[in-house]
Amino acid sequence: MTARERRFEEEPSAAVRTRTRPPTMADVARHAGVSLKTVSRVVNQEPHVRAALQARVQAAISALGYRRNEAAARLARGATMLTLGLVMENISNEFYARLAAAVEAASAEHEALVVFGSYEESPDKERMLIESMYARGVDSLIVVPSAADHAWLAEHAGLTTVFVDRVPPGLDAADAVLLDDVWGGRAATEHLLARGHRRIALISDDDGLSSVHDRASGYRTALLAARVPADESLVVRGVFDPGRVAGEVGRLLDLPDPPTAFFATNNRAAIGILHALRERPERPAYVGFDDFALADVFNPGVTVVRYDVSRLAGAAVNLLLNPSPAPRRIKVPVELVTRGSGELPPT
Amino acid sequence: MTARERRFEEEPSAAVRTRTRPPTMADVARHAGVSLKTVSRVVNQEPHVRAALQARVQAAISALGYRRNEAAARLARGATMLTLGLVMENISNEFYARLAAAVEAASAEHEALVVFGSYEESPDKERMLIESMYARGVDSLIVVPSAADHAWLAEHAGLTTVFVDRVPPGLDAADAVLLDDVWGGRAATEHLLARGHRRIALISDDDGLSSVHDRASGYRTALLAARVPADESLVVRGVFDPGRVAGEVGRLLDLPDPPTAFFATNNRAAIGILHALRERPERPAYVGFDDFALADVFNPGVTVVRYDVSRLAGAAVNLLLNPSPAPRRIKVPVELVTRGSGELPPT
Repeated sequence: MTARERRFEEEPSAAVRTRTRPPTMADVARHAGVSLKTVSRVVNQEPHVRAALQARVQAAISALGYRRNEAAARLARGATMLTLGLVMENISNEFYARLAAAVEAASAEHEALVVFGSYEESPDKERMLIESMYARGVDSLIVVPSAADHAWLAEHAGLTTVFVDRVPPGLDAADAVLLDDVWGGRAATEHLLARGHRRIALISDDDGLSSVHDRASGYRTALLAARVPADESLVVRGVFDPGRVAGEVGRLLDLPDPPTAFFATNNRAAIGILHALRERPERPAYVGFDDFALADVFNPGVTVVRYDVSRLAGAAVNLLLNPSPAPRRIKVPVELVTRGSGELPPT
Repeated sequence: MTARERRFEEEPSAAVRTRTRPPTMADVARHAGVSLKTVSRVVNQEPHVRAALQARVQAAISALGYRRNEAAARLARGATMLTLGLVMENISNEFYARLAAAVEAASAEHEALVVFGSYEESPDKERMLIESMYARGVDSLIVVPSAADHAWLAEHAGLTTVFVDRVPPGLDAADAVLLDDVWGGRAATEHLLARGHRRIALISDDDGLSSVHDRASGYRTALLAARVPADESLVVRGVFDPGRVAGEVGRLLDLPDPPTAFFATNNRAAIGILHALRERPERPAYVGFDDFALADVFNPGVTVVRYDVSRLAGAAVNLLLNPSPAPRRIKVPVELVTRGSGELPPT
C-alpha cells in the first residue's frame, strides 16, 4: 500500500477531523437552564411550549450559534466530508466556469464542498494556491495544470490530485482526465478538407499544454492523410487573447495566398476569429474547439468540437474518491457539432 | 458590542485556529536522524550535502508530507487566514463567473481562499449550502440571495454575511453591496426614448429580486418622466431562460402594435433577444443590463448597462473584513455603453 493510498483511508479529511465540534442541543439546554426535551421541542417547533421558556431557548441558541442541520449532525457523528480544491487558469473564461459548475455538481453528490483558485498565467501563483489550499486542510485537488513543470507535487504525499484537460509536465505518474484531443483536431480538420479547403490555418494557444499539442497533432494527421502539405506559414502558436488572435487572423487573411479556413484550438481562439471577421469582407470557414453559450446565435452559427463537461468533472471526482496506487488516464469523447461556420465553401 | 462583532474579533477563523500544525523542519530532522541544519540545507538546495544524507532527508520529507511554504509558516505562527464562502445562483452564468473571479482576486489580497456553491433556483439548496459551509468552519459569507425569505440567517450569530447584487428578503439588518439598479434602468430607457422609441418592452426576471424590481422601476420612472404611458402588455416578467425569452420576444413582435425597442434587465434576457432576432426580419433597438464577453462581436454590438464587477466584489470583501454592528449599504455606480443595438431608430 502506498503512502498516498494509506493516507486517504486513514485520514479522510484533515479539515473536518480537527475541527472543534459545533454546539449541541445539550449545550443549548445547559446554557438556557432547561431540559434537553424542551430544547428539542422548541427546535422542532412543537406546540405547547411556554413563551418564556421558548425565549430562553432562543436566546441560548443565538448566544451559542447552535444550528440544527443535517451536515452538523453528521459531522458530530464523525462522518467524513471532503473539501475539494479546484485550481484553474481563470474562472471567468467560459470553459473554466462550466467546469467549475460541473465539479461543484459532482462534488455535491458526495457532500463535498469546492474551494477554487485561479492562477491566471502564473505557474508561481498556481503552486502558491495549491500550497495554500493544502495548508488549510484541503487534501483532494482537481487541477487544470499550466505548462510549468509539476514535479514538485510528487513530493506531497498528503495530496490526492487529479489533473483535468491537460497532462502535467514532469509528473507522469498522476491521474488525469483528458479529452480526446487528437480525435477532435483530426475531425475538425477532416470536416474542412471534405468541403474542399486546402489552405487551413491553425490558431493555437501555448503548445506546451498537452491539450493544445494534441489538437494540433490531430490537425497535422488529417492534412497528412489527405496528402495536403502542411504550410507552417498558416500555423499560429502561443496566442490566447482574443484580441491578439483577431490580429493574427487579419494578418493571415492579408497573405498573398490566404487561408480559406481556420481551425481554432480553443474557445478564445474561436472568439478571436469572430472579432476579426466583424471587420473583414472575407467569409472563411472555421471550426472551434470548446462549445460556448452564444455559438448558435451568430450567423452563421459556430461549428465546434464539443464534449460533455459534466463527464469530465464526474470522472475527476470519481478518481479522487477512489484512489489507486497506479496512475490512471481517462479519455472523454468529443464530437463535431455543425452549425454553419464550418460548412462554408472555399472562396 | 454585539455578539457578531465580538465573535469576529476573538475568533478570526475557526477553520484555521483548530487545525493541527503542519510538520516542521524539526520533525523532518528527527524523522531522518539528522541535524536541523542539514534539513535546512537540503530544503534550500544548498550545495555540499552528501547524497546519502540528502536521500534520507528527502525520504523523511515525503513520509511526513513536510512542505516548505510561506502559508504554512504563517499558519504555524498563528496568523489568521480566512476561507470565504461564496453562494450564488449558478457559476456557469457569465455574471456569476465574473463575480467569482473578482471575489477570488479581492480575497487573495487578504490571503483568503474562496469556497463556492451554486443553488440553481432552489432556496432550499441555498440554505443547505450555507449551513454546510458553516459546519465546515466557513464563517464569512458573500451571498447573492434568491428571492426566498432569509430571516433564518439572523439566528446565526456565528456567520458574518454580506449580500451582493440583491437585498435578502426578510433580513433588513444585513450588509449589502448593490448596483445602482434604478439609475441603470432609467438610463437605458431614457436612451431608447431619446432615439424616438415610444413602445419599449421590458423583459425581466423574477421581480421578487430587488435588483430586477429596481431596474424595472427605473424603466417606469423614465416612461413617466417622458409622459409615455406604460403599456402592461409590453412587460414580460419571470422569464430567466434565454430560450423562453426568445419565445416572448417573438410573441411581442407579432402583436398588432409591436414594440420598437426592448430593455432587458439582465444578460440572459439580452441573449434571449439575440436568439429571437436571429430568426426574425425586424430590427428593434435593445439595451441590456450586465455586460458580456461577446457583446461587441455581434453586429450591431449590444448596448448595455455596465459596471465594474471588481468594485462589487472588493466592496463586499472589505465589508466582511471590517464588520460593524450597524448594517451598511453600498451602491456601486453603473454606466451605459453604446455599441449599436440601442441606437437603432424606431421602424
